[in-house]
Amino acid sequence: MSPSPSTQSSLTRNEALTLSTIASACLTILANALREDADIPLIVSLALSGLAFSASYALIRWLGPAFMRAGFRGVDLAKPVRREIPEGMGAVCAAVYLFVMIVFVPFVFYRDVVAATSGGGNRDVVVSLRDEAAERGVFLHRFPHSKLASYLSAMVSLHTVASLGLADDLFDIRWRHKFFIPAFAAIPLLVVYAVDFGVTSVVVPRLLQPCLGPLLDLGGLYYVYMAAVAIFGPNSINILAGINGIEVAQSVVIASLLALNDALYLLPPSALLPRLAGLAGKPYPHPATDSHLFSLSFLLPFLGVSLALLCHNAYPARVFVGDTYCYFAGTVFVVVGILGHFSKTLLLLLVPQIFNFVYSAPQLFGLVPCPRHRMPRFNARTGLLEPSVTTWPDGKPPRKAVEWGLRTLGRLGLLRVVVDKGEDGKERIVETSNLTLLNLWLVWRGPMKESRLTLEVTMLQAAMGLAGLVVRYRLALLVFSQDNI
Amino acid sequence: MSPSPSTQSSLTRNEALTLSTIASACLTILANALREDADIPLIVSLALSGLAFSASYALIRWLGPAFMRAGFRGVDLAKPVRREIPEGMGAVCAAVYLFVMIVFVPFVFYRDVVAATSGGGNRDVVVSLRDEAAERGVFLHRFPHSKLASYLSAMVSLHTVASLGLADDLFDIRWRHKFFIPAFAAIPLLVVYAVDFGVTSVVVPRLLQPCLGPLLDLGGLYYVYMAAVAIFGPNSINILAGINGIEVAQSVVIASLLALNDALYLLPPSALLPRLAGLAGKPYPHPATDSHLFSLSFLLPFLGVSLALLCHNAYPARVFVGDTYCYFAGTVFVVVGILGHFSKTLLLLLVPQIFNFVYSAPQLFGLVPCPRHRMPRFNARTGLLEPSVTTWPDGKPPRKAVEWGLRTLGRLGLLRVVVDKGEDGKERIVETSNLTLLNLWLVWRGPMKESRLTLEVTMLQAAMGLAGLVVRYRLALLVFSQDNI
Repeated sequence: MSPSPSTQSSLTRNEALTLSTIASACLTILANALREDADIPLIVSLALSGLAFSASYALIRWLGPAFMRAGFRGVDLAKPVRREIPEGMGAVCAAVYLFVMIVFVPFVFYRDVVAATSGGGNRDVVVSLRDEAAERGVFLHRFPHSKLASYLSAMVSLHTVASLGLADDLFDIRWRHKFFIPAFAAIPLLVVYAVDFGVTSVVVPRLLQPCLGPLLDLGGLYYVYMAAVAIFGPNSINILAGINGIEVAQSVVIASLLALNDALYLLPPSALLPRLAGLAGKPYPHPATDSHLFSLSFLLPFLGVSLALLCHNAYPARVFVGDTYCYFAGTVFVVVGILGHFSKTLLLLLVPQIFNFVYSAPQLFGLVPCPRHRMPRFNARTGLLEPSVTTWPDGKPPRKAVEWGLRTLGRLGLLRVVVDKGEDGKERIVETSNLTLLNLWLVWRGPMKESRLTLEVTMLQAAMGLAGLVVRYRLALLVFSQDNI
Repeated sequence: MSPSPSTQSSLTRNEALTLSTIASACLTILANALREDADIPLIVSLALSGLAFSASYALIRWLGPAFMRAGFRGVDLAKPVRREIPEGMGAVCAAVYLFVMIVFVPFVFYRDVVAATSGGGNRDVVVSLRDEAAERGVFLHRFPHSKLASYLSAMVSLHTVASLGLADDLFDIRWRHKFFIPAFAAIPLLVVYAVDFGVTSVVVPRLLQPCLGPLLDLGGLYYVYMAAVAIFGPNSINILAGINGIEVAQSVVIASLLALNDALYLLPPSALLPRLAGLAGKPYPHPATDSHLFSLSFLLPFLGVSLALLCHNAYPARVFVGDTYCYFAGTVFVVVGILGHFSKTLLLLLVPQIFNFVYSAPQLFGLVPCPRHRMPRFNARTGLLEPSVTTWPDGKPPRKAVEWGLRTLGRLGLLRVVVDKGEDGKERIVETSNLTLLNLWLVWRGPMKESRLTLEVTMLQAAMGLAGLVVRYRLALLVFSQDNI
């Protein structure tokens, strides 16, 4: 990658060659997968992911000027020379992803469709009333309508949230207008969940079992919990943002860890990974195989489009990703978490996002002034990023409780607090670092280059996610009396 | 409505009062429908359609300035004073529609969800593996997964095409890039069709039966036919466009006629409409009831959002609808046509669009020069619309075959052809009216006001659609030996 952002909108010869090689290889795999009687969906998904990567990579490059013309452009503030680059390129990823997922449908259900419609069962009849035809279909082969419904419900949720993101990129919608929309977008997911799983109980940790019993049925509350996850997911990515590559890099890490989690159930229990996770004694194929295949088929194309975007968004960014990408990525995780029935595992992988949200809350909810942008400040003299700050002007000091909180955070090393002696000789807070994980990291580690900050926070995400999975698999049995798989 | 376009972006007191009355009435109906054991889906759909109308009406007004700021604006060329007004407001309708349809899901499936999840069948188990839970669900109550899959596949198609329309409004995508996308968007529909109906035979008219037999199985070709319908639907609305209100008015007429067609199957056969259609002797409830309820539940909210848009887009337009609306409307018709299994009836209602497309073909395919806009020309002196023309400059005369075709159309009264004597004394074509139904209507009927042209073409649409339904129901039995319901 060239060190200075390039403005060209065509592929270099090397890029074109690489992309067409990948695309041809994937098309060959696709063609072979159809002829052979292999494990079609996973191979097809891999091939489609490769195509999604190539298509996104090329389209993001090609569409740059069109996006700029249409008003999707932004200035990279953390560079010595501020230039306008295309914004909202996540929309291209979302479009390619959704397109690929639609093309995937006939492959996933190919054999079922053939089995359900072949045998002349339906062809001879004209007044084939709907129910009658369905009955015949059922006798020949029971088409997995519930699987198709799950798949399509996920598509509807993803599409809705991607549209919300696009609208946000276009119109800058206010928080209160967009906050609940992801929960509505999750309605089809929740209906499918209610019908296919319907499990609303959570396993109670051993410590609490004397009070609550081994299982706690949350009933309707469980759906409220899932709706909350649906709201949290998209927003969590969106607020851990602001430096080149961070949105995509964290999403790639989370998606990879989720895919790793799926692999634990899909590999034979004697393989290394399941043994490491303590799943060696489990039955094979695992009863949750279907859920995890489903999850993987949503994650692989996501990784495809995300890696393509990362190539363009990594430092020095030549495009911005926009809210569309953040919302979209978060919703991919929510979809696989809910429909794969591992929303609690998902939350373990989102610990940095949860921390960032909780840490940001005082600014999000207005207790501490929240400037328009809270991303780290670029120091043009040193070329390094420093924590950005919110200032407390003379006339508007923090309220007593807020001041106490800020000072406590400062004493715990969780905030940079600058105090000054006022005219009355009393110390008062004049500025505090903005409450985001990125600024906190800079407070801890000192000023650093933008690319290094992205790398370190991404590493943190990966380390904490892996730790989360270890907790979930190796330590869960110590806390819970049974594994809730 | 005030005679001059208003630029206000807030509702008048009367409007606010009317909309809130409608909304409250609908909310009351919703609340009652949930308590009573009435025929829930249809009543809920009506109430949600009312809410969709109110929401669209208000949002279109409120969002005008935001759309203008985001670059969605256009100039109304057919007015004495040319002003910029918001463009692409169909996106608001599509968003409200899709939102309402998502909220509708739990209502449609309310009883099924309750029946499938109640009874404690799922609540007691924790290691409730997916298949096991599904089996239990089946024993308690077979959830209509296939109905949910149909519903969601329709949503996915609608969402995809609406996004395509939005992208077109934003980026002006080229024909060759967008042409096949609606066919891909229809993939989930076609999969559902293959599984649920799987009928690929068409009834052969009596005349041809000696050659072809009573039924002709089109096999895979039938899916190609449906994909073609999926491509034609969205584009057909988009090319019968260009004067205030025409896109929405034709869509409202088509949707109303489709709803009328549904009513024929839902009303008791002894009611007036079914008797008129010759359905008096049919069983009741009709075996296709489900398909037509499904169709109606997609059409009613569409009528809701469309009427709201029409209020703002009718002459003199205060907003433009954009490609989003045209694509979206066409896809609503395609969805109900395919999943309701009456795609051929749908084509009967689209006769003016089919004529317009065939008539336009020479310009669309480049045989005749095609200017950027082909809408009728506004004569500022008379205040009337006249046919717009394409000119044949001196050096570029039409090719022989094209010239013959144009002259023939001119002789048949299907084109205005202006000829001139060249320097060599030979007559040559200098200009021809643009090949659209709107221009043709003006050639036939003479210049007229914009509002009158919209009204007359809408009336034509309604008359031809009604005639189409009469052909379908009263005359079909003369041509076909059995009714293909």
